[in-house]
Amino acid sequence: MTYCLALRLDEGLVFLADTRTNAGVDNISTFRKLHVLRPSPDRVFVLESAGSLATTHEVLDRIERDLSQPGDHDSLATVNHLFEAALYLGRLSNEVAGEHQEALAAAGADGTATFILGGQIAGQRPDILLVYPEGNYIRASDERPFLQIGESKYGKFMLELAVEAHVELEAAAKIALTSMMMTARANLSVGPPYDLAVYLNGSLALDEVRIASDSPFLGELDEVWTRHLFDAISDLPGVPPDVGASVG
Amino acid sequence: MTYCLALRLDEGLVFLADTRTNAGVDNISTFRKLHVLRPSPDRVFVLESAGSLATTHEVLDRIERDLSQPGDHDSLATVNHLFEAALYLGRLSNEVAGEHQEALAAAGADGTATFILGGQIAGQRPDILLVYPEGNYIRASDERPFLQIGESKYGKFMLELAVEAHVELEAAAKIALTSMMMTARANLSVGPPYDLAVYLNGSLALDEVRIASDSPFLGELDEVWTRHLFDAISDLPGVPPDVGASVG
Repeated sequence: MTYCLALRLDEGLVFLADTRTNAGVDNISTFRKLHVLRPSPDRVFVLESAGSLATTHEVLDRIERDLSQPGDHDSLATVNHLFEAALYLGRLSNEVAGEHQEALAAAGADGTATFILGGQIAGQRPDILLVYPEGNYIRASDERPFLQIGESKYGKFMLELAVEAHVELEAAAKIALTSMMMTARANLSVGPPYDLAVYLNGSLALDEVRIASDSPFLGELDEVWTRHLFDAISDLPGVPPDVGASVG
Repeated sequence: MTYCLALRLDEGLVFLADTRTNAGVDNISTFRKLHVLRPSPDRVFVLESAGSLATTHEVLDRIERDLSQPGDHDSLATVNHLFEAALYLGRLSNEVAGEHQEALAAAGADGTATFILGGQIAGQRPDILLVYPEGNYIRASDERPFLQIGESKYGKFMLELAVEAHVELEAAAKIALTSMMMTARANLSVGPPYDLAVYLNGSLALDEVRIASDSPFLGELDEVWTRHLFDAISDLPGVPPDVGASVG
């Protein structure tokens, strides 16, 4: 499994992905799931993937081939809008999965992949979109301006909180990391190192960092977070007296 | 869907269940999923259920019939150990689901149910057990002495925290409610009112309360909790400088 997320804030975008992959519990590895693409100077894209690693790799290779080969075909350099980039990505993903479907189905496997595509084309609104294996897409809503793929349940609460609190870009990055740590703690199929990318609207440039599992920053984040949770627990109001009678 | 949980602490047991049921999004109702059974003075059981409501109801009716009819058959009054109660419950559940399986499968439905069974038989250790639809069971482990059925992912973190913090019985009840609220906020299929039962070891009596959706206590719990989370967010350490450079 996997956990990738993206947040759209007033200032910019935040992307975070884990790197753990597994084919069965005895075949665990580390692969990059967050990819930054700069197909031309007027645009920057971030791609996050969940699902079949093989399909993801072939999709990325096809994207690169389309960019490097001259000719009259679509590519991330030729699309005029983010939604066209999402449709292009969705078409590749659907094609690749479809080509291997029969062989994979015979082995009881599923070759589909789900993507988050985000970024900006100069002069247009930065955005994040979720691309389904079938090739269609949705945008993040204005009410819940974040997207998740993979193991999305464990850390969803944190993202809702970030949105509710109208946090700034840097705080959002911290909250995203907390959401990730919460997920990794609960689910073995999600794990460090983590790839974080932060995009400031209009910059057409991404700040990227890989955060290792032994990073002192992660340790400190966990410590501060846990301390506050324990404080919260001790500060919670008492259960109504009719239930607390014999346990108070 | 459903969210039920149980915690086993040094002092006693905590049980919490939501009451929302749904057969499609346009058929939403409220049913009790936490049931207290006192089949004889030397024992008390709590039953929580997730899955088919029909199967749950028939299982409960059969449990009552077995208790009220004299004769040489198993019942919750005749079992000598909690694990025997779990096996008895599992047998009923498996039988009921099996009897309706063909008709349900033809309608594309699943009639299975999963249970948490907890409580104490006098002189024995209080415990909580998870009973699978197939009729077998597991105990809660010593390292993670809690069980969840239904929508377990959203609120799992809170229970792990409670265990890690070695909280007392009343604090555990508050944490369980926080875990429930977190789940209900994220998932429409889980909702109030909530049934809370707290068991003090050796008492053979349960404190029960139903907490309504408009309960001032729930509101205060949410307020204190959210305030502490926002404090935590503002107190989190800064993201490493190489990623914060253009966003600080």
